[in-house]
Amino acid sequence: MSLLVTGSIAVDSIKTPFGQRADCLGGSSIYFSMAASFFTPVRLVGVVGKDWPFDLRQVFAGRNVDLQGLEVREGSKTFRWQGSYAGDMNEAKTDKVELNVLAEAAPVIPDAFKDSSLVFLANTAPALQLQLLNQLNSPKLAVADTMNLWIDTARGDLLELLKRVDGLVLNEGEAKMLTGINSLAAAAKEIVKLGPQFVVVKKGEHGTLLLTNRQEYFMLPAYPTDRVMDPTGAGDSFAGGMMGYLAREDNYEPATLKKAIAYGTAVASLVIEDFSLDRWKSAAPKDIEQRFQRLKEMVQF
Amino acid sequence: MSLLVTGSIAVDSIKTPFGQRADCLGGSSIYFSMAASFFTPVRLVGVVGKDWPFDLRQVFAGRNVDLQGLEVREGSKTFRWQGSYAGDMNEAKTDKVELNVLAEAAPVIPDAFKDSSLVFLANTAPALQLQLLNQLNSPKLAVADTMNLWIDTARGDLLELLKRVDGLVLNEGEAKMLTGINSLAAAAKEIVKLGPQFVVVKKGEHGTLLLTNRQEYFMLPAYPTDRVMDPTGAGDSFAGGMMGYLAREDNYEPATLKKAIAYGTAVASLVIEDFSLDRWKSAAPKDIEQRFQRLKEMVQF
Repeated sequence: MSLLVTGSIAVDSIKTPFGQRADCLGGSSIYFSMAASFFTPVRLVGVVGKDWPFDLRQVFAGRNVDLQGLEVREGSKTFRWQGSYAGDMNEAKTDKVELNVLAEAAPVIPDAFKDSSLVFLANTAPALQLQLLNQLNSPKLAVADTMNLWIDTARGDLLELLKRVDGLVLNEGEAKMLTGINSLAAAAKEIVKLGPQFVVVKKGEHGTLLLTNRQEYFMLPAYPTDRVMDPTGAGDSFAGGMMGYLAREDNYEPATLKKAIAYGTAVASLVIEDFSLDRWKSAAPKDIEQRFQRLKEMVQF
Repeated sequence: MSLLVTGSIAVDSIKTPFGQRADCLGGSSIYFSMAASFFTPVRLVGVVGKDWPFDLRQVFAGRNVDLQGLEVREGSKTFRWQGSYAGDMNEAKTDKVELNVLAEAAPVIPDAFKDSSLVFLANTAPALQLQLLNQLNSPKLAVADTMNLWIDTARGDLLELLKRVDGLVLNEGEAKMLTGINSLAAAAKEIVKLGPQFVVVKKGEHGTLLLTNRQEYFMLPAYPTDRVMDPTGAGDSFAGGMMGYLAREDNYEPATLKKAIAYGTAVASLVIEDFSLDRWKSAAPKDIEQRFQRLKEMVQF
């Protein structure tokens, strides 16, 4: 099934205990698209400025990523993010951010993309996510990500969005912040009451929790890789793997959703083993399959 | 098989966002013994002062906990701990501690206990844990707990202890501190090189990681209870359930260890739903079995 992603495209500068990398490829829709492309064709919608230094056709060469939703905006500058990680690297510290084109009008969704069956609205202002969603005909599965900033400053829009999407992906602190509940299990219960059929809570190195509105829990630990070099994009890569698998299977039942979460976990565990998206250059579908199988074994008792 | 536990016996005063309780029953060996007693007979070794206000025969009435290793020491005072929890309650804040009898000589292990097959050395100074271990004939399975204080101040003794035990149970921060490695997967690998056949890392509400010296990983999320009232004793209860199940099965293979960790998780998820050990008063083996089965379902994909 056709899978659309809307999200940021960025030039990142990253520093971790294992090194640093200036002006590398980043952004939620880039990580998402690459991860999803291991499973299914992807339609990317995003906007960059005239200063955009990468050739995405080359980046996605050999992968089925449709770039007709990429807008290179005259007179605008690309979104830039500079961040660092220390200690257990569970949280990025933003050292500098230049929103640039992200602070302007959203890109337009091409007509050819409007029939997309699955859509992932990567993190941005919820009003913008609603605008993007409104441009689509009637996706079978719409999933959104969000962040603390919008929970804090645009709660009304976010609550509106939650009534319109089938799934919400967010991190643990955000789930607690959104609901004001400190128990994660209880916070997740509260979120599915706000509209979505399911919520996926990302807990970084602690894995993922799924709760459906039928009160079905699923919990999966992160894949225990011992060479985490750069966690940037892990969450978007997870979402890409998850949505990519769902699109391929064209089935959104809990059993499929659980497998999708495991595939998302497997594909995200690879990308954090090197800077930017570099680790995936040498990754094959069999590497993802192998980690999926190992995850399966590692939780069985 | 016979299971011995050595550890603290305490009078606790606890404050959580859900209430407070003064002078209630606590201590690692108490939580451990009660948890283990759902599975197997337990031999308890510990020491209290003359001011000890509880009748342990009554506390353990109807459970097979042998109290002949309980010493009530003349002229000494019982260990007292006062702590509080806030926010996500993942960490206790110690507001006041009176070591009292815990700072004196260790209790003696009764002759009748020296043939114990399984022993759990709850957290105390590693030199003391070694002394206790040396009093036993030759346990088939010795498992120890430890804490940041000893990693910091008694590393030599602790490394000595690690060569003598089959398993180590510790929390995530301690595993990273012991090895100086921030990746948990890598830290666990390092720990099994220090001697034990397996390490169990407790991650609080994020569950548990097992690594054996055959590089076999097992990861289990915590049981998602949405009414965490008092997390005190969760770790010792987990260890009690784990060791109790291993004693009952008399088998220490990875497959059994994994089930034991799931039983430990189930029994610990109950105790945190009320203050002190109160929740277990109304808990039956079938409640534990039910949570064990739900855990099994919740991780399957």
